[in-house]
Amino acid sequence: MSFTPDSRASLSRYWSTIEASAGIGQGRPGGLARLTLTDSDREMRDLFVSWCREAGLTVEIDTMGSIFGRREGTDPTLPPVMIGSHLDTQINGGRFDGIAGVLAGLEVVRSLNDAGHVTRRPLVIVDWTNEEGARFSPPMVASGVYAGRYALDWAHDLISDDGARFGDELARIGYLGEKPCGGEVDAYFELHIEQGPILDAEGREVGVVTGGYPSHGIRVRFTGETAHTGPTPMDLRHNALVAGARFLTAVDDIGWDYAVHDGKATGSRLAAWPNKPGILSDTAECVADVRHPDPITARVMAEKMRRAAQEAAARAGCTAMIEDEWVWGGDIFDAGLIGLIRGEAIRQGYNWRDIQSQAGHDAYHMAPRFPTAMIFTPCKGGITHNNNENCTPEDIAPALNMLLHAVVARADR
Amino acid sequence: MSFTPDSRASLSRYWSTIEASAGIGQGRPGGLARLTLTDSDREMRDLFVSWCREAGLTVEIDTMGSIFGRREGTDPTLPPVMIGSHLDTQINGGRFDGIAGVLAGLEVVRSLNDAGHVTRRPLVIVDWTNEEGARFSPPMVASGVYAGRYALDWAHDLISDDGARFGDELARIGYLGEKPCGGEVDAYFELHIEQGPILDAEGREVGVVTGGYPSHGIRVRFTGETAHTGPTPMDLRHNALVAGARFLTAVDDIGWDYAVHDGKATGSRLAAWPNKPGILSDTAECVADVRHPDPITARVMAEKMRRAAQEAAARAGCTAMIEDEWVWGGDIFDAGLIGLIRGEAIRQGYNWRDIQSQAGHDAYHMAPRFPTAMIFTPCKGGITHNNNENCTPEDIAPALNMLLHAVVARADR
Repeated sequence: MSFTPDSRASLSRYWSTIEASAGIGQGRPGGLARLTLTDSDREMRDLFVSWCREAGLTVEIDTMGSIFGRREGTDPTLPPVMIGSHLDTQINGGRFDGIAGVLAGLEVVRSLNDAGHVTRRPLVIVDWTNEEGARFSPPMVASGVYAGRYALDWAHDLISDDGARFGDELARIGYLGEKPCGGEVDAYFELHIEQGPILDAEGREVGVVTGGYPSHGIRVRFTGETAHTGPTPMDLRHNALVAGARFLTAVDDIGWDYAVHDGKATGSRLAAWPNKPGILSDTAECVADVRHPDPITARVMAEKMRRAAQEAAARAGCTAMIEDEWVWGGDIFDAGLIGLIRGEAIRQGYNWRDIQSQAGHDAYHMAPRFPTAMIFTPCKGGITHNNNENCTPEDIAPALNMLLHAVVARADR
Repeated sequence: MSFTPDSRASLSRYWSTIEASAGIGQGRPGGLARLTLTDSDREMRDLFVSWCREAGLTVEIDTMGSIFGRREGTDPTLPPVMIGSHLDTQINGGRFDGIAGVLAGLEVVRSLNDAGHVTRRPLVIVDWTNEEGARFSPPMVASGVYAGRYALDWAHDLISDDGARFGDELARIGYLGEKPCGGEVDAYFELHIEQGPILDAEGREVGVVTGGYPSHGIRVRFTGETAHTGPTPMDLRHNALVAGARFLTAVDDIGWDYAVHDGKATGSRLAAWPNKPGILSDTAECVADVRHPDPITARVMAEKMRRAAQEAAARAGCTAMIEDEWVWGGDIFDAGLIGLIRGEAIRQGYNWRDIQSQAGHDAYHMAPRFPTAMIFTPCKGGITHNNNENCTPEDIAPALNMLLHAVVARADR
């Protein structure tokens, strides 16, 4: 056998890895609750590492716990072409989010092994630690450290809601590696489910991702004072829970104001203390974000969101401390890689379209440093971060085969 | 010695018990975090039981863990006069809330022991389990079971935020007693700090409580669906956290609408799940209440609060399930006991006033079943459910001595 323009990945072999993953860390029916650095994450990592080794890859773990499986090229001195995504999930996550992309990288390698084809540049497949941010916030933290966006020590000191320290949990599950974070990359590819309704609604087989909706995320800490819910007059109250509620209400209003142009604004977290009947809360921590396809409008929405936090605090007699949680998106992906992927869609005859990502991805951190591109597969109804997230093998086949050929073209050049 | 109209309680002895209590389960500086059925609650209970036994009382624990210390009367067949309150605290609680009343009962007994006076009716001093509801909601649960308001099994099955079962925790700390809940009571007295600013602001030495602000508390469970915070269009969202935020915002608005006539409306709890960045929450549980001195207005506010829950749910694409958490207040205290207490204020020469309670108390559950009354002491600035809650011995002395003489008058009749 040899690698030819007609070569295709093995869909059944690929799907068997999706199904094996779907058995580890099961959550609600059909879904996964495989939070980062938990025992089920370790179990999935161990399986992925064994698959990498069986495929002849050299496995390295970096100091953020990301797993790199390297397939040597004919010229080992060249920077590798990297394919990756994440194996962790939300607490009510699906079977495809992230997972589809990591296992697509594995299938690319297995297909090249079958074909006996060694690319000129090395290939590296990667599982990034903690893409979801569901246990340790912010999301996409390990790719952020890799790309120099975040400091390693800061990331190791992140604390989860259950009081665990990121670095300690890495060591506990045996994935505190020694490889330093970072290193040159020739190109970074990420296959992902769309996590939106567009491809499915339009009957498209695949999406070529040109960039991401500009998104601004903030974390707001409201501070008030505890008091009895009964006798304390309204004008003497400093109820941080009310500040948080007013803030998230205002954020939702911003989302509706811009919904006609596909803007979104989301309150995703409100954690108050003591948060008990009978007592006014003295702290509330909120996370909220805005997204809009137009970068200027996204900035306007972000400014309104910040002002809403201050107004909510003032209205509730509290103070607000606002921190940036993330700023990402824009036309960040590499024109050359986008063209390569479009070319494969045309050559292989798929019904495709350009699309912007509305979710954050590890590719966002890689893009400012290395040529980066993403390929989206349709997912049913756009349902995601939900146990009903669903795709068929046929939904993913076009993206998988485009990835295979685009990677080889890039790595052989 | 004998008991005479000039007999007075020992303020220094009383204060030493307040200070001993203030050393058990310390929270923020000066405050207590002695949540019900925790190890520190057990430690305080053990100390209280030892004090009761030293004072010659017969100690019994009922099946809700409430502690009863009985001092026999000359006619043991008569129902007892009962004096009580609670020794548990909020998580950022003060040193006086509840505690001042239980230890006042102990001081009444000790004073009568000093005087060698045995009342005609038995005296019983009581520490009610879980008045605060800070760990197991609702509050005032053990007095509620005693008075027949709540079922014992239901109360034993309450679950705390930390996943503990009420009945199991009672057994764990050794306070699952055998005495059945309930029993006839001739009269129930409760001394308590005002937990409001009125007595302190007016320079009054003591308040004779005529009733409580009518209050309606509800628990609302909003149900939506998880989805990704990014791509999900505003009109396809079912974010239960937003439903909760909109509800608590509306509740706060209701409070401000009625603030001019001393109405209050409070959101005290919002617990969403998963409550994480990146995912819309599919459940949110809120607790909110309204209070107003006028019972009809309180009902109007409660109706608005219920409607606000339905409107918030509809606005966020969620459903709302509303449960009554409590309805209490009104002119519930006994005219005869109120007169007796007023008489003592006049006879002993204090600057007193009638006052309505704005907080809930165990006395609220006792009042519909047994003649009941309360005496309020001033507390600095009305600050309560806060580690800065403060009183001096002199603040409490008038109420303590009025309690002593009112109890003896009632018990000897």
